[in-house]
Amino acid sequence: MPPTVDLNADLGEGFAVWQLGDDDAMLQVVTSANLACGFHAGDPALLLRTCRAAAAAGVRVGAQVSYRDLAGFGRRFIDVTAEDLTADVIYQIGALQAIAHAAGTTVSYVKPHGALYNTIVHHTDQAAAVAAAVHAVDPTLPVLGLSGSEFFAASTRLGLRTVPEAFADRAYQPDGTLVSRREPGAVLHDPAEIAERVLTMVSAGEVRAVDGATIPVTVESVCVHGDSPGAVQIAHAVRDRLATAGVGLRAFS
Amino acid sequence: MPPTVDLNADLGEGFAVWQLGDDDAMLQVVTSANLACGFHAGDPALLLRTCRAAAAAGVRVGAQVSYRDLAGFGRRFIDVTAEDLTADVIYQIGALQAIAHAAGTTVSYVKPHGALYNTIVHHTDQAAAVAAAVHAVDPTLPVLGLSGSEFFAASTRLGLRTVPEAFADRAYQPDGTLVSRREPGAVLHDPAEIAERVLTMVSAGEVRAVDGATIPVTVESVCVHGDSPGAVQIAHAVRDRLATAGVGLRAFS
Amino acid sequence: MPPTVDLNADLGEGFAVWQLGDDDAMLQVVTSANLACGFHAGDPALLLRTCRAAAAAGVRVGAQVSYRDLAGFGRRFIDVTAEDLTADVIYQIGALQAIAHAAGTTVSYVKPHGALYNTIVHHTDQAAAVAAAVHAVDPTLPVLGLSGSEFFAASTRLGLRTVPEAFADRAYQPDGTLVSRREPGAVLHDPAEIAERVLTMVSAGEVRAVDGATIPVTVESVCVHGDSPGAVQIAHAVRDRLATAGVGLRAFS
Amino acid sequence: MPPTVDLNADLGEGFAVWQLGDDDAMLQVVTSANLACGFHAGDPALLLRTCRAAAAAGVRVGAQVSYRDLAGFGRRFIDVTAEDLTADVIYQIGALQAIAHAAGTTVSYVKPHGALYNTIVHHTDQAAAVAAAVHAVDPTLPVLGLSGSEFFAASTRLGLRTVPEAFADRAYQPDGTLVSRREPGAVLHDPAEIAERVLTMVSAGEVRAVDGATIPVTVESVCVHGDSPGAVQIAHAVRDRLATAGVGLRAFS
Repeated sequence: MPPTVDLNADLGEGFAVWQLGDDDAMLQVVTSANLACGFHAGDPALLLRTCRAAAAAGVRVGAQVSYRDLAGFGRRFIDVTAEDLTADVIYQIGALQAIAHAAGTTVSYVKPHGALYNTIVHHTDQAAAVAAAVHAVDPTLPVLGLSGSEFFAASTRLGLRTVPEAFADRAYQPDGTLVSRREPGAVLHDPAEIAERVLTMVSAGEVRAVDGATIPVTVESVCVHGDSPGAVQIAHAVRDRLATAGVGLRAFS
Repeated sequence: MPPTVDLNADLGEGFAVWQLGDDDAMLQVVTSANLACGFHAGDPALLLRTCRAAAAAGVRVGAQVSYRDLAGFGRRFIDVTAEDLTADVIYQIGALQAIAHAAGTTVSYVKPHGALYNTIVHHTDQAAAVAAAVHAVDPTLPVLGLSGSEFFAASTRLGLRTVPEAFADRAYQPDGTLVSRREPGAVLHDPAEIAERVLTMVSAGEVRAVDGATIPVTVESVCVHGDSPGAVQIAHAVRDRLATAGVGLRAFS
Repeated sequence: MPPTVDLNADLGEGFAVWQLGDDDAMLQVVTSANLACGFHAGDPALLLRTCRAAAAAGVRVGAQVSYRDLAGFGRRFIDVTAEDLTADVIYQIGALQAIAHAAGTTVSYVKPHGALYNTIVHHTDQAAAVAAAVHAVDPTLPVLGLSGSEFFAASTRLGLRTVPEAFADRAYQPDGTLVSRREPGAVLHDPAEIAERVLTMVSAGEVRAVDGATIPVTVESVCVHGDSPGAVQIAHAVRDRLATAGVGLRAFS
Repeated sequence: MPPTVDLNADLGEGFAVWQLGDDDAMLQVVTSANLACGFHAGDPALLLRTCRAAAAAGVRVGAQVSYRDLAGFGRRFIDVTAEDLTADVIYQIGALQAIAHAAGTTVSYVKPHGALYNTIVHHTDQAAAVAAAVHAVDPTLPVLGLSGSEFFAASTRLGLRTVPEAFADRAYQPDGTLVSRREPGAVLHDPAEIAERVLTMVSAGEVRAVDGATIPVTVESVCVHGDSPGAVQIAHAVRDRLATAGVGLRAFS
């Protein structure tokens, strides 16, 4: 059993007057904050405030890059060309880097969001485009994603450090990908069940898929959602269950 | 008479399929390229291509920051709060910094665009907000703007280097501000007249205002527009007229 | 004392995954629903659902037209030209008309939103532009607004029916305009105080301004905000207080 | 050989300061103008001006509905849900209806744009969603599209009138769909070749696909592009070649 694991969540996902989730409360639990970069959520003023809060809480900041799709919250696949996608991702990382810098912190990793995340598990061109963007900005930036994904393959080819993560509250398909949010049962809600599930992921490196099969997961970081009802309670349950088992929370190295 | 002067123009102002101006031709003349940052124009892929072209042409890149107003091309005053404006400007500079870095160049200065440019000549709060943004990103970044403006006052207070510019093809009001584009006669079109006017600005430090009065202008850089009909021809006329008078073009130091 | 008065609120002001206010609860109280039209809030799918809910609840639908400013929620003045503003408003009304029609209802009036509302109290050109837009779409469409405003003057000149409204929970300046939301005390929060204030507005045609002076208000409709904390409770308090005094709620004729 | 055929083109596809194509010249040739509706192009002021010009030229106006994708000009598939797509299309048609009404004309048909057009040739859910939107707005509105498409099947099920069109300057695949614009040779450029091809389509009901095979096309309207280089010349060539063969141009009935 590893002595520590990283706990990441999506923050900064409001826009204009609209709020999503309780970022302040989440920043008291997580060790890594995936901040929206403006393409699916996150106006600059919100991002600046959230970066400051993350810095104050000692939580690391990552760039949660997305398709350009505010109206769809980045949850819809867009058949964007590799050239456009690379530029879009560079743009987003850079924007957050400056915001983070102004807030006294830095962007320490990149994690794709929503449909982009799911797409580049298997979409070779878009996976390579995102990896190329990260590499172009800073080849020492780690990427968070799914072990075995095309994104990780492309990132590895470019020499990027890959940090495999597991999802605390999402149902898995037998092939290790996530069940789409459009499907029933895609998101788990019971804090105790989720916490136990995370412990199994972290300690045993496996998770039960929707068909009942036990499948392997490689976990250096655990993702809890910041915008679910009960998100804060779930994050606490995960932290406490891990602590009881002797696993501390700590940002990945 | 100065041995050299900087010649700047707005580039990268297309969006999606839409083109504006002849960036490639302009890059053969100007010494500084004010690149849009996505808020009034400039999709990331275009910006990446334009940064690469600027790098190849040896032209310096600046961030042309704007109100968030694609539908108005940044030409409409928006009563944005100082907090939001600062964050918006940080975001834009950072985005272009990463794009420039990926293209092998850097953002070397900041120049506000359109209505923001005009507003912060006199709007104290917004002027301070833009200066604060530049300072937060990098206190060594120079700002291009109007001598005597609130923007320069705020920038100077923060220790930023200010680079005063004059407009080759815009009519001046007696107080040294520009005639609004909504007014007739706001934009000059005759290349020879413009070139002569620029020479007077650079050599004598003065320009004739719309009321016929001669007013002083402080010029370290001359702005030619990249999107006017005849923009390329005007830029060439300015360069040639200055050269005849012994003034070379060179990026400001 | 009038036997009935209209009660209106802003609804449909979410966007994408973001929610604002409790539209379903508000639809049980108000008689007129000002629906966002997509420029400051309101994605089409949300608007369609909200129109259906309004139709089911027997609540009339109006078009809450705005500056194009999603990032500012329409709360920032934009110096848009009259030509652009007229077209923007026509576009928005038409979009909501089709949505309403698909939901089995119709757009019965137009009410400007946020900064546009406040601006056209005094901005002659923009006031005329909005009135011209309503007239161009349908000269029988009533407009909701402030009595004595330039907007009403322009609307009256075009023969539009004007419906004066008062704001239940907003502080008034001595000249009858609203205190800006950026000022402290701009929004009232106590349901009982608000309800009493509305009764005085409706029965006596007057309200106390921030300087303590009693000023006249002309009221055919009362606006309660749908997005304040406690909005539903406030709406209920207003309804109940009016009912106790013998004033029923009914859409303006 | 039919005595007349409709000639349609995409117009109103600029945005803000950006222009695309020569709408005025195209309006002198075509009989039906597919106007952008703001989601891929077309700001409201441009649409209003273009509707007025179409009305003055006696050219019929149709709504060219699109994915919400200004940055991609509607040319990228978006995996939007049927519910969202239906609402998006209703919104767009309604917006243009009001604009057209203000300009003294009406929206007489609906034609999907770009990636949406191509997608609903085969994507059952999205095809049904678009057809449902048209039906919800006005069941007497005809739809322009590809014969044999899922879109036409869905439209026919709802009782909508379908108007099959052929593309003057696009390469066809053997199955009757268009070659993607990302492929070389997707767009034809020679006016004489295009004109001859159109005559064959209209008179013989067939076209040569990229593999050399002759395939059937059903044509009540011919689409010429308004934004290609040489678009106006191509449109003239098509009109003249058809006229020589005794086929006049006339809006479909």
